[in-house]
Amino acid sequence: MSQATLATSQSINGFELRALQELVEHVSADPDSAIAGFRVTSQWNGGARVESKVTEYELAGQKIGRRYVIRSDEPRELLGEDTAPNPQELLFAALNACMIFGYVTNAAALGITVERLSIETHGSLDIRGALAVADVPAGMTEIHYTVRLRANASPEQLEALHQRVMAHSPNRFHLAQPIRLVPRLLIEG
Amino acid sequence: MSQATLATSQSINGFELRALQELVEHVSADPDSAIAGFRVTSQWNGGARVESKVTEYELAGQKIGRRYVIRSDEPRELLGEDTAPNPQELLFAALNACMIFGYVTNAAALGITVERLSIETHGSLDIRGALAVADVPAGMTEIHYTVRLRANASPEQLEALHQRVMAHSPNRFHLAQPIRLVPRLLIEG
Repeated sequence: MSQATLATSQSINGFELRALQELVEHVSADPDSAIAGFRVTSQWNGGARVESKVTEYELAGQKIGRRYVIRSDEPRELLGEDTAPNPQELLFAALNACMIFGYVTNAAALGITVERLSIETHGSLDIRGALAVADVPAGMTEIHYTVRLRANASPEQLEALHQRVMAHSPNRFHLAQPIRLVPRLLIEG
Repeated sequence: MSQATLATSQSINGFELRALQELVEHVSADPDSAIAGFRVTSQWNGGARVESKVTEYELAGQKIGRRYVIRSDEPRELLGEDTAPNPQELLFAALNACMIFGYVTNAAALGITVERLSIETHGSLDIRGALAVADVPAGMTEIHYTVRLRANASPEQLEALHQRVMAHSPNRFHLAQPIRLVPRLLIEG
């Protein structure tokens, strides 16, 4: 994001350029300050219903309180009560939101004003994998998404922005790359 | 899930065993009926705010309408307005909810009554990757989670259930395995 050559008092895409540059300078000078720790605790509520809670996150070792609840369920045809989005829909929302943040912050750093941006994501799951009734992958092996972008920049600049988000979006990375998942099972009496 | 030997009129963990067995038999007999297509459209709302919408999903080629909105934002320290969970928190909620569904449905199929179940997930992100200011991975390379389970089964049975969820949870697969992400960029005039 070092390309910004605009006055730092300016705001683009809803971001103060000064705040963006200060964040970049801060984490560059002090790598420990760049560590953001996220935590979610999810409680089973019967059937397919789950309530996931955020109570804090950590930045540079400091806990910062925040309170959010994310509810999920399954459609009726998949044994749920259809009271909330399902886990795959939450996953797509997580992917899209992370990439959107990447487009608009990188655009801001490059002096590009985004007028409109949406991402539509779809994928197909063969539920025989989850049900363990056929030798098929447990999940989707590919996910497709369409980015619709309107911004005051050339197609070449927007293509470069697109490549940049592909290379640097955390949640895109979490899906595209294999992540080590470290479980611990605590059996309660 | 073929291990169920219980009367199918029974309900365990909020699932009718008859419905669970019918689903298993249906998708086993007709693989086309096992394809569930999910779709999420996410709209940028300024700054870090994103509104993701579910309007339908597809099962066996049939569109089934459902309407949900999933909001996200970033904490203030990460340039957001802290009005909703962030994309990494949505991702953890997606992972946890999918695995919880795996534990309780597989437990039901095995005749195990789950009394209590929660999953706590955490991971640390070096945001210099997303900001492209250091040569570090864009995302977390490992994610830790703790499953707390209380159920009427032996530790060995619950350990087997745990292994089964690790092998067959779709969203666990989506993180643990590399998924092919297929983008399309549409520049709007």
